Amino acid sequence: IDHFGFNSVKTFNQRYLIANEYWKKDGGSILFYTGNEGDIVWFCNNTGFMWDVAQELKAMLVFAEHRYYGESLPFGKNSFKDSRHLNYLTSEQALADFAELIRHLQETIPGVKNQPVIAIGGSYGGMLAAWFRMKYPHMVVGALAASAPIWQFEDLVPCGVFMKIVTSDFKRSGPYCSETIRKSWNVINQLSTTSRGLQYLTEVLHLCTPLTPRDVQHLKDWIAETWVNLAMVDYPYPSSFLQPLPAWPIKVVCQYLKNPNVSDSLMIQNIFQALNIYYNYSGEAQCLNVSTTTTSNLGSLGWSYQACTEIVMPFCTNGIDDMFEPHAWNLKEFSDECFKQWGVRPSPSWITTMYGGKNINSHTNIVFSNGELDPWSGGGVTEDLTDTLVAFTISEGAHHLDLRASNALDPISVQLARTLETKHVKNWIRDFYRSGLQH
Amino acid sequence: IDHFGFNSVKTFNQRYLIANEYWKKDGGSILFYTGNEGDIVWFCNNTGFMWDVAQELKAMLVFAEHRYYGESLPFGKNSFKDSRHLNYLTSEQALADFAELIRHLQETIPGVKNQPVIAIGGSYGGMLAAWFRMKYPHMVVGALAASAPIWQFEDLVPCGVFMKIVTSDFKRSGPYCSETIRKSWNVINQLSTTSRGLQYLTEVLHLCTPLTPRDVQHLKDWIAETWVNLAMVDYPYPSSFLQPLPAWPIKVVCQYLKNPNVSDSLMIQNIFQALNIYYNYSGEAQCLNVSTTTTSNLGSLGWSYQACTEIVMPFCTNGIDDMFEPHAWNLKEFSDECFKQWGVRPSPSWITTMYGGKNINSHTNIVFSNGELDPWSGGGVTEDLTDTLVAFTISEGAHHLDLRASNALDPISVQLARTLETKHVKNWIRDFYRSGLQH
Repeated sequence: IDHFGFNSVKTFNQRYLIANEYWKKDGGSILFYTGNEGDIVWFCNNTGFMWDVAQELKAMLVFAEHRYYGESLPFGKNSFKDSRHLNYLTSEQALADFAELIRHLQETIPGVKNQPVIAIGGSYGGMLAAWFRMKYPHMVVGALAASAPIWQFEDLVPCGVFMKIVTSDFKRSGPYCSETIRKSWNVINQLSTTSRGLQYLTEVLHLCTPLTPRDVQHLKDWIAETWVNLAMVDYPYPSSFLQPLPAWPIKVVCQYLKNPNVSDSLMIQNIFQALNIYYNYSGEAQCLNVSTTTTSNLGSLGWSYQACTEIVMPFCTNGIDDMFEPHAWNLKEFSDECFKQWGVRPSPSWITTMYGGKNINSHTNIVFSNGELDPWSGGGVTEDLTDTLVAFTISEGAHHLDLRASNALDPISVQLARTLETKHVKNWIRDFYRSGLQH
Repeated sequence: IDHFGFNSVKTFNQRYLIANEYWKKDGGSILFYTGNEGDIVWFCNNTGFMWDVAQELKAMLVFAEHRYYGESLPFGKNSFKDSRHLNYLTSEQALADFAELIRHLQETIPGVKNQPVIAIGGSYGGMLAAWFRMKYPHMVVGALAASAPIWQFEDLVPCGVFMKIVTSDFKRSGPYCSETIRKSWNVINQLSTTSRGLQYLTEVLHLCTPLTPRDVQHLKDWIAETWVNLAMVDYPYPSSFLQPLPAWPIKVVCQYLKNPNVSDSLMIQNIFQALNIYYNYSGEAQCLNVSTTTTSNLGSLGWSYQACTEIVMPFCTNGIDDMFEPHAWNLKEFSDECFKQWGVRPSPSWITTMYGGKNINSHTNIVFSNGELDPWSGGGVTEDLTDTLVAFTISEGAHHLDLRASNALDPISVQLARTLETKHVKNWIRDFYRSGLQH
């Protein structure tokens, strides 16, 4: 459980999945998915890219679950009990888990020892893939870090860039779409001042529980997060990542958000139609539940703790460059909330101290990919840093579209990115075998 | 105190020394000594190389004390109380301390932020310097790792190489010197079988406390460690590192160890004369104390714990390639002793998992220096690995002689090494300023 101390010898069961259908002991490779904040089976099923290239790379696929997520709970049901039990939920421990797992595979599966390992991950898992190559380059010959916002820390990028990209997605997906959303907040605020208004909101938005004055901020946060999630999964074909959705879901949503100048009541009816696309595309929901915005495959508890400790990402809005209500980044406020919830306070500069911030050019063999539609691209590496730290931008891509299985409706930009990514991976494999670095 | 967990917010005072006499804000540099297992003032006074090059490099000198040594005790007097208090004594925590300290200096001393930092260390501190460059290349542009046995782990080098080099030092320092020592163990064993013999050993060796049968193994270990220490500090001029000693102390010692075929009683008298050089060169000791072999500036408690956890170095002897009694490396036995003393068990493969073992070629800008007389060179990097991972061997050098102040009696080999080391450091500094990587 603790790689960095020797007082406790406790261990835990880490889940990992292996697919060796296409693996060849002769000249093969190991594609190692550095699991992120969720159930590894779900990530496995949403990372078709690895399955698509397995045969060409004669690759064994390994999907390693991140501690404190899915079934890899260090203290079982007590894992999230308090800050003492959560103490071992850090990126450093997770990377060490991956290192120990690779070593275990090398020592227990004949043939693995003499093969190159490539780290692959998306989002936080992409950050882990990049960091793993940086910190354990003896373990992996290279890393594919898809949609990995490794610079969404401290003041490395402007705190407003994330919401600006969300807004731009809505702006380009339908006339007056972002303007309509920008106007909607005040309509909600106005309606919230009377009990009749609150009742109207409850009814028209089909909320599962009646809205009270103290829930209004939460309702707006929930709606804003819905727009954010739509920006992340604005994929070109019907998909079911965070929720089941149609192709280009923002375009569908924006069909209901064409007119910022309608009456307050009509505005709310339109907002509901838009939300209903995201939360009820299957048509099965009886009401909308404001307590969650996403699949339960993501570990929201663990992630909330991580955001309150290491993974401190400053976000802000100003209502001008974006379609949200203005909100400055307030570390003090954030820290107090963290302390209330978890009994810990964030260390906002630690990740930069640990992983180098923008000063990472001495590393090698990392491909950073980003979708231009993806709000996380704002904190990502979108330009080549060196010959071997390269960046691919997918103009029509949302959040790690490139890691998804190939699809007939894939835009050219993601097809090209996947081809180039595969080329780099093949070069790393080739260099490994040429160098004679096998054990 | 804990960089890798957020449950405890406890801090401690880390000691560091700064010399800025020659520092220039314009075009200068920071030489950062990565402190090892002892009092930082003592290391500072024994690392004259940094002082000698300060002016040429316009350098600020920083000497950072390693946690749990000197005055940098996380829990004061309780620091070594039990494995709970010792839990934060690891190389990873120490490296993170260095990273935080550099960041602190960058943020509090105007001018530091825009200057290149170079890590310098010797022995375990040399390992830390190399590992620091490997793990935090964004913090230091390069590292000088003097006499750093980063490969004295697992089976990366033969476990007998260390004692073989000790033996070879004695062999070349006087006729029949190593043969005499090889023969001495049996003489001690023989004498130890009778109480008269034990008394003779006590008297002739001037032991402070009478020898009992159960102390005999400890006595032999203590004598063996004395020969080891002499090999480490076999410097070409009078020095006072582990003990005050004459120039080329092994030569002096070997003058008493010329004849392996003397009587048992004369053998012991000769051994005493030899030991007396090491323990009583000043002539002030009333008796020889077998409870210690070295200066109290080294933190033997902390080091014993580190050796029992992470820094697990396999040593062995066979009495043929070396002059010691045969002793195989026995991890089980070692582990049991560790558990008895500290309540912890060693993780012998962890350092290799963490720092890469021999597979470190993707790193850059590390100079490894080793003295051929130094037993630690057996576990060191003694050949160039790449263009930027280079090795210098100092044919007449003992343990990190190159880090000591320049001396009129320095052999050419160490002068040359220092010149080349300085050249590399200057190139790193030049590259830093050329790259425009200043913040």
